[in-house]
Amino acid sequence: MGDYAFDTDSRVWPAGADGGFAAELTDRWNGTAGAVNGGYMLATCTRALGLAMPFPDPVVVSGFFLRPGAAGPAAVRSSVIRSGRTMAFGEAALTQDGKDIVRATAAFARLGSAAREGSDRDGAGRDGPVFLDGTPPALPPPVECVGVPVASFGLASIAERIEFRSAELPGWFRGQPSGRPASEFWMRFADGREADLLSLPLLVDSTAPSVLELGAGSTTIQLTVHLRAHPAPGWLACRATTRFVSNGYHEEDFEVWDSAGTLVAQSRQLALILPP
Amino acid sequence: MGDYAFDTDSRVWPAGADGGFAAELTDRWNGTAGAVNGGYMLATCTRALGLAMPFPDPVVVSGFFLRPGAAGPAAVRSSVIRSGRTMAFGEAALTQDGKDIVRATAAFARLGSAAREGSDRDGAGRDGPVFLDGTPPALPPPVECVGVPVASFGLASIAERIEFRSAELPGWFRGQPSGRPASEFWMRFADGREADLLSLPLLVDSTAPSVLELGAGSTTIQLTVHLRAHPAPGWLACRATTRFVSNGYHEEDFEVWDSAGTLVAQSRQLALILPP
Repeated sequence: MGDYAFDTDSRVWPAGADGGFAAELTDRWNGTAGAVNGGYMLATCTRALGLAMPFPDPVVVSGFFLRPGAAGPAAVRSSVIRSGRTMAFGEAALTQDGKDIVRATAAFARLGSAAREGSDRDGAGRDGPVFLDGTPPALPPPVECVGVPVASFGLASIAERIEFRSAELPGWFRGQPSGRPASEFWMRFADGREADLLSLPLLVDSTAPSVLELGAGSTTIQLTVHLRAHPAPGWLACRATTRFVSNGYHEEDFEVWDSAGTLVAQSRQLALILPP
Repeated sequence: MGDYAFDTDSRVWPAGADGGFAAELTDRWNGTAGAVNGGYMLATCTRALGLAMPFPDPVVVSGFFLRPGAAGPAAVRSSVIRSGRTMAFGEAALTQDGKDIVRATAAFARLGSAAREGSDRDGAGRDGPVFLDGTPPALPPPVECVGVPVASFGLASIAERIEFRSAELPGWFRGQPSGRPASEFWMRFADGREADLLSLPLLVDSTAPSVLELGAGSTTIQLTVHLRAHPAPGWLACRATTRFVSNGYHEEDFEVWDSAGTLVAQSRQLALILPP
């Protein structure tokens, strides 16, 4: 897996007699509040599941965030719940000091790559109908975009691992929240690691929450990630959108499009608005 | 709970010594393919969780559908994973003949009702900021709408339990799929039961899949339901949308708005396209 930060930090290895894994969470994926990023922990669960599942590709991963994680030793219990002919289901629990931090459930299968199994001209490919009511964000090329200076994030070490580029600096950063909790931007690992299905559960949760544009902060309760295609190498074009903030909660939707213009991941999280 | 079909059919009762529940799935919630509706099974899991959780309201429920269910005896194992000060997490497994059919995970809390805890005029209510980038579907009144005749569904008994009304009959029913996998319609229980948080996991999965408008069928792999507010009595205005069908999968988003114009549930599922 090379020496990429994501692979090193999400590594799991067999430990104990019960089929469990050990892991070591690092402080290299902390968000603005100094907490270990939830997507990083969910990706670590997904990696452990991948070692147990009879199919290579996660197609949907659901994670519940029970407690904050901390840099340091962790364990992952994982098990196959059901193994079918073309799809298998598994669950994982990331624990620290004997307490569950994240509970994850996932379905794995063999996911076609759009490049390998594209649609015929009539829209019906080998894998059935194709319908796309959406396009990648229309962004200037990454070289013409700007990013929030990493140093300005203070404790947010995740900003050193993942690069973001947008047409203009976000309103929340300029001290002028736009009132519109939506954004479009480029994203990639800073150390050159290409995105894959295992890293997408991290990437979809790696940005500042959209509600910063409302002057609010939030914490993720649950995150569901659909993995729709193997990403092509290169920058990912992303779209984050919150449509409903009410009763102290909000959803946040996230789309990830690869450099070939294919939708590779779609996620939604429910988050709890934090007191000011 | 009265004699409403939903309450009777999703009832669970203590059984065995390990804190488990028994249930009896009925054939009154079958879909067009004659299978027990997934949302009905997820609602049954949610009901069992509700009996164990220290807070009354599900705020997010995630279900994975491992095997088809069948009318007949079932069991539900459920447990509290974590109980915090304002939120608790639990998991449930619906089993038949010793095999897991549905795996559910949920977070419960005490959910404000928009009517009780609405926002102040400046958009910041007792529960924090409010932002709504969406409105209920603009539908003619239910009395001016039409519904697919129940008898035309053949085996689809769920159509006898839940009423749907839309401005015009769906294209797939008229033998002319529209090519647009999206719809807006009214929905309510046929026997007069009002919707509540416990029944919404069923209701968001109770309609024909949007991809019927592409001439395709599908089966749900995973369903995440966000419960955003206690519904007011009356008809529910719903919007179902599929934006991306690719690689043999599609997502389906569902919004439920109550008679007071409040968004009460938002769900997304990942479904597998079935061979023609």
